[in-house]
Amino acid sequence: MTERVAIIDLGSNSARLIVMTIYHNGAYNLVYNQKETVRLSEGMTETGILTRDAMWRAVGTLKVFAHMCELVKVDKILAVATAAVRNAKNGAEFIDLVHQHTGIPLKVISGENEARFGYTGIINTIDIEDALLFDLGGGSTEITLVKNRQSVKVFSIPFGAVNLTEKFASQDKISESQLTAMREYIVNHLAKLPWLKRLGLPLVGVGGTARNIAKMDQKRKNYPFPKVHNYRFGLMAFEELWRELTKTSLTQRRKYPGLSSERADIIIAGTTIVKSLADISQATNIMVSGCGVREGMFLEYYLSKQQSSVIIPDILLHSTRNMLLFYKGNEPHADHVAKLADTMFEKWQPILRLTGRDRHLLRVAALLHDIGITINYYDHARHSAYLVENARLFGLTHREQMLVAVVAGWHNGPAAKYVRNKIYNEFLDQHNWQTARKLALLLALAEGLEATQLGLVQDVEPSITGNQALLKLITSDPVSIERQAASAHRKWFKKELGFELIIE
Amino acid sequence: MTERVAIIDLGSNSARLIVMTIYHNGAYNLVYNQKETVRLSEGMTETGILTRDAMWRAVGTLKVFAHMCELVKVDKILAVATAAVRNAKNGAEFIDLVHQHTGIPLKVISGENEARFGYTGIINTIDIEDALLFDLGGGSTEITLVKNRQSVKVFSIPFGAVNLTEKFASQDKISESQLTAMREYIVNHLAKLPWLKRLGLPLVGVGGTARNIAKMDQKRKNYPFPKVHNYRFGLMAFEELWRELTKTSLTQRRKYPGLSSERADIIIAGTTIVKSLADISQATNIMVSGCGVREGMFLEYYLSKQQSSVIIPDILLHSTRNMLLFYKGNEPHADHVAKLADTMFEKWQPILRLTGRDRHLLRVAALLHDIGITINYYDHARHSAYLVENARLFGLTHREQMLVAVVAGWHNGPAAKYVRNKIYNEFLDQHNWQTARKLALLLALAEGLEATQLGLVQDVEPSITGNQALLKLITSDPVSIERQAASAHRKWFKKELGFELIIE
Repeated sequence: MTERVAIIDLGSNSARLIVMTIYHNGAYNLVYNQKETVRLSEGMTETGILTRDAMWRAVGTLKVFAHMCELVKVDKILAVATAAVRNAKNGAEFIDLVHQHTGIPLKVISGENEARFGYTGIINTIDIEDALLFDLGGGSTEITLVKNRQSVKVFSIPFGAVNLTEKFASQDKISESQLTAMREYIVNHLAKLPWLKRLGLPLVGVGGTARNIAKMDQKRKNYPFPKVHNYRFGLMAFEELWRELTKTSLTQRRKYPGLSSERADIIIAGTTIVKSLADISQATNIMVSGCGVREGMFLEYYLSKQQSSVIIPDILLHSTRNMLLFYKGNEPHADHVAKLADTMFEKWQPILRLTGRDRHLLRVAALLHDIGITINYYDHARHSAYLVENARLFGLTHREQMLVAVVAGWHNGPAAKYVRNKIYNEFLDQHNWQTARKLALLLALAEGLEATQLGLVQDVEPSITGNQALLKLITSDPVSIERQAASAHRKWFKKELGFELIIE
Repeated sequence: MTERVAIIDLGSNSARLIVMTIYHNGAYNLVYNQKETVRLSEGMTETGILTRDAMWRAVGTLKVFAHMCELVKVDKILAVATAAVRNAKNGAEFIDLVHQHTGIPLKVISGENEARFGYTGIINTIDIEDALLFDLGGGSTEITLVKNRQSVKVFSIPFGAVNLTEKFASQDKISESQLTAMREYIVNHLAKLPWLKRLGLPLVGVGGTARNIAKMDQKRKNYPFPKVHNYRFGLMAFEELWRELTKTSLTQRRKYPGLSSERADIIIAGTTIVKSLADISQATNIMVSGCGVREGMFLEYYLSKQQSSVIIPDILLHSTRNMLLFYKGNEPHADHVAKLADTMFEKWQPILRLTGRDRHLLRVAALLHDIGITINYYDHARHSAYLVENARLFGLTHREQMLVAVVAGWHNGPAAKYVRNKIYNEFLDQHNWQTARKLALLLALAEGLEATQLGLVQDVEPSITGNQALLKLITSDPVSIERQAASAHRKWFKKELGFELIIE
């Protein structure tokens, strides 16, 4: 049966609620997301005590969350509190207060567990082998060293964007000396971690500060797609951004393009932590993940029902399958088209001249080519393209996702209208378009051979002789509809690959 | 439980299968659609007998359909045969043959029943009061006179695009004398129907000929949206198209923009029937429906479980509600936002200066503003716009559907990116954009007041005093989140309407 899981994450700066639905076929998706700025740690830097005001603000927000959980009939609530409550002398009192007034079983988690959830969220949604992860919150920063997708070192730094701001950067405009003091403070802390030095790895960040850095960089570059997850940029760009921010007043920052005004006061401390991490570890570039602790908590829960490891072996295939299940696609048809297309890819590789990566992209496009039916059967190829473009597919760069969208959209043949689409053109160059056309050709042939969706063409044996590409159909039926549908692409085949297509 | 219904429609020219799914919450949608050209009536004009070849072609195609029904686990098959079988001397033999080889319980329906199904399909998907409907098939043409949405006259003309072609237009290029003979033949037949003369009503067509006429006209006009249903055009344009077609050879027609090559041979006979109907009835314009017999059959089945009439009272609201259910939207939230927005529309009408029609559009946008969550929670307003733009919403013109899409997409405030979208700009003029902004403003305010989705702001009492627009909130809670979210639009309110918004 359908199960609804709520995840509540009460940080030092904000409180967040997400609700995930797990459908009976195993597909899952995010159905609700709410963020409220609570500033729970406000005023506790000196005393180490959560103030009465802050506690009541948090209880008020959690009441609203509890109400929502009831309303959408949540089956399970997983609620955690991080640094602020962890470090507060009156943390236990606060937990009681929350339970009494909201019924939410809030659990304080250690810095290590927080890091682990963040790691789980990232490793299953971004395709990385080795990297340095950071989860920069209001009151702590969790860092994790990842090698071969395994977490090998974990550390929780006891400061984040909020408490570091209170300590060093609460002025309207930070002074040069305060900035130096803050940097020294951070560097001294990080010096205790010798394994951090000169790693030479990508720096992958989650949390509000990381997301806002990505958004600001996107604004500066006029990035054509509003997506933060798996956004990558260079250190020069980040350095420039950081320098500029340190010279602004609070009023200027409130209007800074891409920066949320609620974060204007704490962004300098936040970016300075990132800057220090990048410097010390000699990061190669910065990547931002939209998935962190909350997604990690959900995935630990979800995966625990199916496997013992929290690592999904192939995140691209997993998320593709999840999309196919979610949109209730015809799985046997999708699998069969993917298989036929893949065989053609393999056997015609000498004339296709594509890469192994392209083969993965073809598989994703083939599995998802029909999901647009959920929007409207008519013109569904175009809708499949839109869904792929905007889907929560993991393990693809933004550019690859656009390319897969185009291929899925062309599963009946290439249509000029996609070429005119501004977004696609901003991501795809001449070579990418050529790749898309070749992959779409294979997909269209496979789709033609599955025109009746009955699996009548059991398999194909593609080969090459002289300037002819032969496609032998393995079938025990007449398959006239399938043959005709595939033959319709012979002209395109000739144009694209320069070979005569013979269907036997 | 989920129910799957297959509808099979075996005409003189083509065989069609659609599969509709009815979900447990009552939502329904089209999940599969297949069309095969069978030409069942081929060669029977002189003998009145279905040929052996034609019968076996049909049986082969129906076998494929039966296979598919099994594969997708169809619960019910509704299968009808029309003119070709109806008129054939060996029709009964054919029905047996089909049953024996495919198991499909094919039922021959009368011209009147065929007309009724077509009427049901049109009247529930196009917003018309009075019109002349025609369903132009391969072997017959059903016409229905509609007054106040009721079918008041029905007639089945015993010829359609295929048999009329065999009689008059089987040459490569039709001669002037043959064209005249064909027109006289049609007109003589229609002369028997005195009620047809000088009706002065819109002519609404379904069937392949009608759809192809729409597509050809769209190509000529470079129409920016690939949608045929509810497409409207003038008689001058149709007349021009018809004249041009009568002067072409078959080879030219096979490449004619917008015309399906399979229909190139029979399009002249088809369009000439339409031309005669338009002339005699003095039609005001032509409209095309993408929904006809098959949708009518489905709706009769679907509606019979809920009501005695086959007429849906409000097709716009019905299809909107169907979308909301299909995308599993949060209904209480959607209804509450729609209610709040509607109250503001009503009470602020003196400063909004919008029409009653705009009020309906606001309601649709409000009900559907969140459906984009199904694609991706992040950026879901943009996805809602895409879904509305492409949804099977009935009772809206294409322009209105684009306008509703923009309003739904702006439910958190106006974003410039929609303005840049080529399709929207082709449909919406300055005035439409202004309307969209005003409606979006009301929607955004209502959405703000429902920020926690808890219905805490039970109602609003909008009023106007001097240059201030007052919005009194009826609530028994503090609603600080809601108040803040709505207040964020005060600047926009002032800019759009010139009034100061005061939330009390």
